Amino acid sequence: MDSIKIFSPSSVANLSCGFDILGLCLETICDEMIIKKSNTPGLRISKIEGEELPMSIEKNVAGVAAKSYLDMYPTDIGIEIEINKKIKSGSGIGSSAASAVGAVFGINELLERKLKKIDLISHAINGEKIASGEAHADNIAPALFGGLSLIRDVKTLDIIRLPVPSELTVTIIHPKLVINTSHAREALSKQVPLKNMIKQTANIAGLISGLFLEDYDLISRSLNDEIIEKDRSLLIPEYFKLKSAALESGALGCGISGSGPSVYALSRSKITAESIAAGFKSVILKTGLDFDIYISKINLDGVKKI
Amino acid sequence: MDSIKIFSPSSVANLSCGFDILGLCLETICDEMIIKKSNTPGLRISKIEGEELPMSIEKNVAGVAAKSYLDMYPTDIGIEIEINKKIKSGSGIGSSAASAVGAVFGINELLERKLKKIDLISHAINGEKIASGEAHADNIAPALFGGLSLIRDVKTLDIIRLPVPSELTVTIIHPKLVINTSHAREALSKQVPLKNMIKQTANIAGLISGLFLEDYDLISRSLNDEIIEKDRSLLIPEYFKLKSAALESGALGCGISGSGPSVYALSRSKITAESIAAGFKSVILKTGLDFDIYISKINLDGVKKI
Repeated sequence: MDSIKIFSPSSVANLSCGFDILGLCLETICDEMIIKKSNTPGLRISKIEGEELPMSIEKNVAGVAAKSYLDMYPTDIGIEIEINKKIKSGSGIGSSAASAVGAVFGINELLERKLKKIDLISHAINGEKIASGEAHADNIAPALFGGLSLIRDVKTLDIIRLPVPSELTVTIIHPKLVINTSHAREALSKQVPLKNMIKQTANIAGLISGLFLEDYDLISRSLNDEIIEKDRSLLIPEYFKLKSAALESGALGCGISGSGPSVYALSRSKITAESIAAGFKSVILKTGLDFDIYISKINLDGVKKI
Repeated sequence: MDSIKIFSPSSVANLSCGFDILGLCLETICDEMIIKKSNTPGLRISKIEGEELPMSIEKNVAGVAAKSYLDMYPTDIGIEIEINKKIKSGSGIGSSAASAVGAVFGINELLERKLKKIDLISHAINGEKIASGEAHADNIAPALFGGLSLIRDVKTLDIIRLPVPSELTVTIIHPKLVINTSHAREALSKQVPLKNMIKQTANIAGLISGLFLEDYDLISRSLNDEIIEKDRSLLIPEYFKLKSAALESGALGCGISGSGPSVYALSRSKITAESIAAGFKSVILKTGLDFDIYISKINLDGVKKI
């Protein structure tokens, strides 16, 4: 095998009450990457389509992730990475995680090393660090494993795969404005009122229970965020109108995807998801912002070879 | 039926990362109550054994709970309550909740009204309010329903019965000193650092997952509290030595029961639970405090008629 092509998926992190710990994998929007063996030794990014991104290994998320992997598992074989970026940088649906995961997974497949996905994750996290400034795994883990990932502890890579109730459908709107992840983090209050913390723990506990019980009403009652939304929503024009439109269209819940500006809503069917998309559209059109809207089931496989 | 006797169980609330939202029901220590029909109309507490508690309806937790129930479902039948208090007030294992739950459940049984337990809970909560100053249900719900209760929202009585992994065993030590629940609440910081809040949500999410998956290691890794323990432990002599002794003896986790001073530890067998009890004892003996130690399975039934 001299070349492989992979799909590396987008993802929604910071799922409402699961801030920093809960993410899901999307089906609709995936980066395409080609990983090739080359006669020239070393690692190179040879082509990037779809975005203006640095080609230098040290400055590119995929490059840093790939280098982290190759530093631990060296090879004499030269490797070239071609990236066709379909997930827009800064959109809030795990663009950098997809690059990092795709590079590490792709090289591991190309070299037929057969490492398990759990052994790849730390290298992907090293890649994502250069984008967000901190080690996070709530986009990386769902992009790698698929489904819904709970990151109980990123340091020890204690990651739990949660059950995915089969009807869950995601609607995403990406209003095209730029929010820098590290700035979005700075927008957060560093202290949380105890009573809001209690509500947040009650909601995440309810949400996890709802996923295991496949209880959509419980999922819906629990899909709230008492802490982050009030600060981060300031960066997204008409956020609360988008949210109201989603809930009025039958969403189980609605929140900021990652650090924004994308907004996600969960629902129980494609029909509801489309009606939420129409609701989002009616609000965003008034802002004059350009936007993309996606509807997706939850991707149960994660990154894969095609 | 002119008289019934009931067992109303003790419980552990504030289960580590489940502060204010998670409680479990104990088997070993139960109040006994006799609820009788009387020819004299009205509600009376006719006898209290085991503790010095007010006999007046308005000042007694059982009385207030019973009155709340009878205000909603009036009767011409006179009712007498006898209480044999086995759960010590102020011990931190749901003494007032047991009284409140027992009174409401007992009267409902005596009058053969066949209301469901979920319809009794608000009256029991009204009773407990006079003990703790606020409406809480994390002792009330497990004492009523048995098992492990998640209180997602006390206002709407959104209470979820969680699965109970069959090996779970509880060791409790009650160091005999008095901590007032409302004072214990005042000891808490009103603001929580965001990063600790994130750890707390990660742990409660891990704990709930561990219960559903019957994954004792995950339960153990998750059974931590990043927020409350540091403040409340100041009120319990040698708390961290008690905790270390429990963990060294094989506990899955250890924390403050309710608002203390009791300390609970979870383990996977009676043998480990006994070894934890011995560890607790070796620490507490050095303090000169009087104490009780209990070992209990989780009570799956809750309050019951005997």
